[in-house]
Amino acid sequence: MAAATLDQVLAVCAANRERDLADLVRLLRQPSISAEDSGVAECAALVQQFFLDAGFAPTLLPTAGHPMVFAERSGAAGQPTVLIYGHYDVQPPDPVAAWVSPPFEPAIRDGRLFARGAGDNKGQFFAQLAGVRAWLETAGELPVNVKFLIEGEEETGSPHLEALVAEHRELLAADLVYTSDGPVIDDAYPIVVYGVRGLLYVELTARGAKHDLHSGNWGGIAPNPAWTLVRLLNTMLDADNNVVIPGFGDDIQPVSPRMRRAMDAIPLDQARSLAELGIGQLPPPAGVPYFDRLMARPTLNIAGITSGYGGAGSKTVLPAEATVKIDMRLVPNQDPDDIFDKVSAHVRAVAPEVKIQRLGSMRPSSTPLDHPFAVPVRRAVERGFGSRPVDVPLLGGSLPDAVWTKTLGLPSFLVPYANHDEANHAPNENLVVERFYAGIRTAAALLAELAGGRPMPAPGSR
Amino acid sequence: MAAATLDQVLAVCAANRERDLADLVRLLRQPSISAEDSGVAECAALVQQFFLDAGFAPTLLPTAGHPMVFAERSGAAGQPTVLIYGHYDVQPPDPVAAWVSPPFEPAIRDGRLFARGAGDNKGQFFAQLAGVRAWLETAGELPVNVKFLIEGEEETGSPHLEALVAEHRELLAADLVYTSDGPVIDDAYPIVVYGVRGLLYVELTARGAKHDLHSGNWGGIAPNPAWTLVRLLNTMLDADNNVVIPGFGDDIQPVSPRMRRAMDAIPLDQARSLAELGIGQLPPPAGVPYFDRLMARPTLNIAGITSGYGGAGSKTVLPAEATVKIDMRLVPNQDPDDIFDKVSAHVRAVAPEVKIQRLGSMRPSSTPLDHPFAVPVRRAVERGFGSRPVDVPLLGGSLPDAVWTKTLGLPSFLVPYANHDEANHAPNENLVVERFYAGIRTAAALLAELAGGRPMPAPGSR
Repeated sequence: MAAATLDQVLAVCAANRERDLADLVRLLRQPSISAEDSGVAECAALVQQFFLDAGFAPTLLPTAGHPMVFAERSGAAGQPTVLIYGHYDVQPPDPVAAWVSPPFEPAIRDGRLFARGAGDNKGQFFAQLAGVRAWLETAGELPVNVKFLIEGEEETGSPHLEALVAEHRELLAADLVYTSDGPVIDDAYPIVVYGVRGLLYVELTARGAKHDLHSGNWGGIAPNPAWTLVRLLNTMLDADNNVVIPGFGDDIQPVSPRMRRAMDAIPLDQARSLAELGIGQLPPPAGVPYFDRLMARPTLNIAGITSGYGGAGSKTVLPAEATVKIDMRLVPNQDPDDIFDKVSAHVRAVAPEVKIQRLGSMRPSSTPLDHPFAVPVRRAVERGFGSRPVDVPLLGGSLPDAVWTKTLGLPSFLVPYANHDEANHAPNENLVVERFYAGIRTAAALLAELAGGRPMPAPGSR
Repeated sequence: MAAATLDQVLAVCAANRERDLADLVRLLRQPSISAEDSGVAECAALVQQFFLDAGFAPTLLPTAGHPMVFAERSGAAGQPTVLIYGHYDVQPPDPVAAWVSPPFEPAIRDGRLFARGAGDNKGQFFAQLAGVRAWLETAGELPVNVKFLIEGEEETGSPHLEALVAEHRELLAADLVYTSDGPVIDDAYPIVVYGVRGLLYVELTARGAKHDLHSGNWGGIAPNPAWTLVRLLNTMLDADNNVVIPGFGDDIQPVSPRMRRAMDAIPLDQARSLAELGIGQLPPPAGVPYFDRLMARPTLNIAGITSGYGGAGSKTVLPAEATVKIDMRLVPNQDPDDIFDKVSAHVRAVAPEVKIQRLGSMRPSSTPLDHPFAVPVRRAVERGFGSRPVDVPLLGGSLPDAVWTKTLGLPSFLVPYANHDEANHAPNENLVVERFYAGIRTAAALLAELAGGRPMPAPGSR
């Protein structure tokens, strides 16, 4: 077989369209609901089979929960290694009655493939596999070293990812991590994402009397824990939404000129975006640009507050307990452990009777926009999607991206293939079929770009 | 028939014990759940029959809801008129499974009569009727003019009482109002209550985006209505629990020396009372006596606050709506209408986007501790219960007492006969049987004391 060029590989991708789509449909027919342990093992076996058929020798990496599928194949000597991450588990399909077609019977309507997992994440990780196998089908070998880690617990918060990665550092050794998950901002342009905000989730609980009391008979005598929380909360955030817990902002990095340029260049119609959600104007502080709010500032969000009577009408109760759930989005280089210590110290100082519980955390993560591997990634996306990607320095949300950037110390690039309205985690999840193909082309192009665009040597020539 | 003395009447009361209890049992067997419109009309007919049998010519006063039973009988010329208020409706018995004996099958255990309505309020208003009919049975006439108004909607908030009283001013014309409802503070001593705190109940609602959002993707962009309420609430109450809404306290009366003496004389074991509820120490402000907190200070109580996720674990949501229910207990002479205007103006000034809704109100009420009619009331209670009553200037809770003191301009005395643990509104409601008899004696004695303790003239002598 002669050396393969990317053009040849892309021609094979074009020829494979029907089969690639049929394979994805087969994968989507197999439920794999990690939260309900429904079909997960069967799906892991099916994913293994796809890797085997493509020319990999996959293995299952067991965890205390669902196993991860690992597969690797060496490319040309001296070439970099890309670790491709994805997940084969899906969200529960509830409410099933809201689906136009059943969640595990994939259906195509208006150029979209509807099924649970179509976008999140089967359609996206399978595009990676399809792009890679096109290389194998064309050239019999890969231009660079490729590793896949496809986990089965992403939808339940990746509880074992960190430990597994730490345990298998050598197996997972790579030069960069590449992931396709989540939707794009706008279908009009592809994006390359370089990081995520972190997360610290805490629950604060205040208690008053042993049980709820009559507010008339006891109002003035029994302390009201809802007031305790209201007062405590008010010491945490100022009127400009700055977190004023001592030390909270110590590690926040200033916005670099490169990041400023990238934020300014994101072509979001901010006014329309706000209008769609019924948001009249941005909350304080005034004058802070839109993307600074998502990428350069942390938040201290009341995700839930509950005390006393919440039903219709009135009930004159003096509550015995009040609870507030707070999620803090952290920016580089805030550390959730450090922030938890600071929040705890603040609560102890201001309202020592309030109990604090840590319900979850995720480290922020960022890869420099000018990292050398950003160049081939951007070029691959441009080749796959036919237009230049927009750089998104940071997602406002949180993903376990620090597993790659901090635990493994690697650059990590997130390139969503799915349409902005993929309805992940919702009924009628879908993937625009042409975006699936664009994803396959991007994955194929990524290997070429990482190899420096050089043609592959013919088999047996080394 | 010769003139009757109170001693003779009390002897008749003693002779009637079995019949009076049997009549009460018959009344308790008849359900009269106003909230569910279950048995209410039948109960109204039964109450009428009791008045008829006792020598009254009762009438039903219709309302837009359940009717009230009215009955009157003149006494000796020139004597005062007492209006006795009570209610024949009861709370729903739920949870029925928690009752030791069925709620509408009265049962006596350990000297207590168990049934829904035993204390609240059938056992207490029927004691009034039994004491009055003992006079009729003994003397054939009453020493003073007596009117009864027994309503059928107290347990649903007396929605038509105010209008009915205003409409029937002449029919209800009296010199004082006398009510037995609620429990005593401690079974060791009877009490006379001279007033109640008022109530204003409002609900504040803040809205953010059109629907709940992902707190990562939108945190910093979408306003959080829970924070809006937390900040607004913090402008309403200071750290010493003083309500700092402008003008809120303008009409609060200073504590009179007479009221101070009465508060100081209430023999409550405050430390035990707090310990039973698990309250370590009284909330701020420090140094304010226990009963000042219930009788001389208003409250602004968070009765319920609800926003975002309130379930187990974590959910990273940015809520679209937040609601707080606030009940304010008002002291004389605060006016709920005026307070509502002030709270509304404050909300408009501080957080104009927050919606305020009025869910209910009740005026505070107070009768002077040194009112001339307080003397015969106290003497009657001492005669009925065998020990001097303790004066309670004000209840911390709210009752529609201002219907008497403000709409009719009458002094109003509340003398609970029921034991402190009557479990009103709860399963296993009960009335200590001997307290029922003490109530009957008190009612009988009240008529004598109001008549100046003079013996009744023999029939036909005037």
